[in-house]
Amino acid sequence: MNSKVASSGISRRALVSTLATLPVLSGTLFSTSAPAQTAADPLPSWNDGAAKQTIVNFVTAVTRDGSPDFVPVPQRIATFDNDGTLWCEHPMYAQLAFALDRVKAMAPLHPEWKDKQPFKAVLERDMKTLAESGERGLVELVMVTHAGMTSNEFAKIVTDWLAAARHPRFNRPYTELIYQPMLELLAYLRANGFKTFIVSGGGVEFMRPWTERVYGVPPEQVVGSSIKTKFEMRDGRPELFRLPEINFIDDKAGKPAGINEFIGRRPIAAFGNSDGDLEMLQWATMSGGVRLGLIVHHTDAEREYAYDRHTPFGELDKALDAAAMNKWTVVSMKNDWKRIFAFQ
Amino acid sequence: MNSKVASSGISRRALVSTLATLPVLSGTLFSTSAPAQTAADPLPSWNDGAAKQTIVNFVTAVTRDGSPDFVPVPQRIATFDNDGTLWCEHPMYAQLAFALDRVKAMAPLHPEWKDKQPFKAVLERDMKTLAESGERGLVELVMVTHAGMTSNEFAKIVTDWLAAARHPRFNRPYTELIYQPMLELLAYLRANGFKTFIVSGGGVEFMRPWTERVYGVPPEQVVGSSIKTKFEMRDGRPELFRLPEINFIDDKAGKPAGINEFIGRRPIAAFGNSDGDLEMLQWATMSGGVRLGLIVHHTDAEREYAYDRHTPFGELDKALDAAAMNKWTVVSMKNDWKRIFAFQ
Repeated sequence: MNSKVASSGISRRALVSTLATLPVLSGTLFSTSAPAQTAADPLPSWNDGAAKQTIVNFVTAVTRDGSPDFVPVPQRIATFDNDGTLWCEHPMYAQLAFALDRVKAMAPLHPEWKDKQPFKAVLERDMKTLAESGERGLVELVMVTHAGMTSNEFAKIVTDWLAAARHPRFNRPYTELIYQPMLELLAYLRANGFKTFIVSGGGVEFMRPWTERVYGVPPEQVVGSSIKTKFEMRDGRPELFRLPEINFIDDKAGKPAGINEFIGRRPIAAFGNSDGDLEMLQWATMSGGVRLGLIVHHTDAEREYAYDRHTPFGELDKALDAAAMNKWTVVSMKNDWKRIFAFQ
Repeated sequence: MNSKVASSGISRRALVSTLATLPVLSGTLFSTSAPAQTAADPLPSWNDGAAKQTIVNFVTAVTRDGSPDFVPVPQRIATFDNDGTLWCEHPMYAQLAFALDRVKAMAPLHPEWKDKQPFKAVLERDMKTLAESGERGLVELVMVTHAGMTSNEFAKIVTDWLAAARHPRFNRPYTELIYQPMLELLAYLRANGFKTFIVSGGGVEFMRPWTERVYGVPPEQVVGSSIKTKFEMRDGRPELFRLPEINFIDDKAGKPAGINEFIGRRPIAAFGNSDGDLEMLQWATMSGGVRLGLIVHHTDAEREYAYDRHTPFGELDKALDAAAMNKWTVVSMKNDWKRIFAFQ
């Protein structure tokens, strides 16, 4: 796909739509005895090498009839982290960029923010002071920008923001900064009877408005962090109001707990990129049987970003050490991926 | 199905398995332009009448190509209460019977329970004193019997109990006391592109071990109440431990909140039988467009039980009044159902 076509936004969407229909067709046509690989390469954006081969070998092992490692379709659960695994998380999480933009948009109604931290820092683009406000400051930002409206209203705010916002380096909508090789991987797994879930530390209602269109992952297969909501009849209409109170943090040890609570099955494959995914990878892979654990390693400063052990967003330290011990596949974005984004 | 065959447990399972495969086949064969009704009656255990006709009319309206009320497949979400809607909830919730049996099974390890309420009441079958212990007593029972083990261990405890326990009146496994007309309704909706979810006040990990086998509803489509779990590596193995702490109560106003949190889409059809389902029915039906709200009314003391406004389990009072106002369909088990259980 050349960048001119991709930048129209049509071509990639068409591709995603096409990929999204594959599971149904393939599930029917190939049923249980089909080989995992079809004639065409299902992972064209992956360079040939150990990472790609490990993926294909795993899928073949769990789907081939008569394989000692065969896994029935209903148990083919795959969980994907989002930030840094499916889309770009630098220079900051998209959801944080959203919160900062919301503060700016809401500022005229809050003149007191000019003198009140952490809002003052946001309005003055003083990232150092903002960082110093720590987790407490960030939670305050999230509560002010993510609560106080209905769920429907919030979905519209997110959708409108995503349509207008641009990534500061690539100058494209955030939903174009998704990793093409991972899109192919999602589709490849679905074509082989897997149910693909997102299990992200990000807000579940920040993701659900767009994951189906962009990744082919429907809202009911998205697990994430959440704030509490309250049901009320207002003027004879049922509404769900978003409250400024944390409900669930789907990160680190919260990920296996969230998988258990929301999905109720143990994944046989898990995909992450940071220490926030360590426990999910342990939960998915250390359960006997052939399992796939995979870590996306950000090694490509030219086409995307390069970071691992020392970064404020997506620190990969313990999980990188654990990968070696547990034989998880570490994917080098620079070496294993032909391209990173569809527009490249 | 005659009762001799059904009591072997094989025939009904075969039926459920067959029904479970229908969505895939029908979805492929009929695609979007298929009529909602196939040649054979999809609801054979339903008497002809207003309730059955309302269901068929609704499904036809939302699935027929070119219908002004057409709803795309991904938005065809249907939510079902469990206790009293899909299976029998009298003389007490099956999960309460489970908790009482667990207290008896655990008693030898807890000699102090002989003198400690509410355990003493359970061991002496003193239901009056147990009832007087109120919600606090019940929560204590649930915590003792449902926490303190891993999720895997709990699933095995539930499965073993269900295999051995018998309903006091019908002398059959609880999983045979499921409503045959509702099984047909689940299958009929799935055959028409609906995704069917259970949204129950019951414990989610009490239901998930058997809902797929019995109802064709996979674990990831079961929403319920839960206690907190904690992820830990123990002896090098990842485990999820069940803690004696309430996480979420999926009842009354908790149901629409749970639907939003776990499913992330608004249902277009909802099925319940008690005041615990009122808010779910409001949320599903009061959203514009053709919607289906349905209440199972327990009117058949002979074949099952008769109760509504005054009962300790499954009180139907406000929701019965709301049904008239909101044009929800009230199904009389006595008049609308040819049979209630498969063995009848």
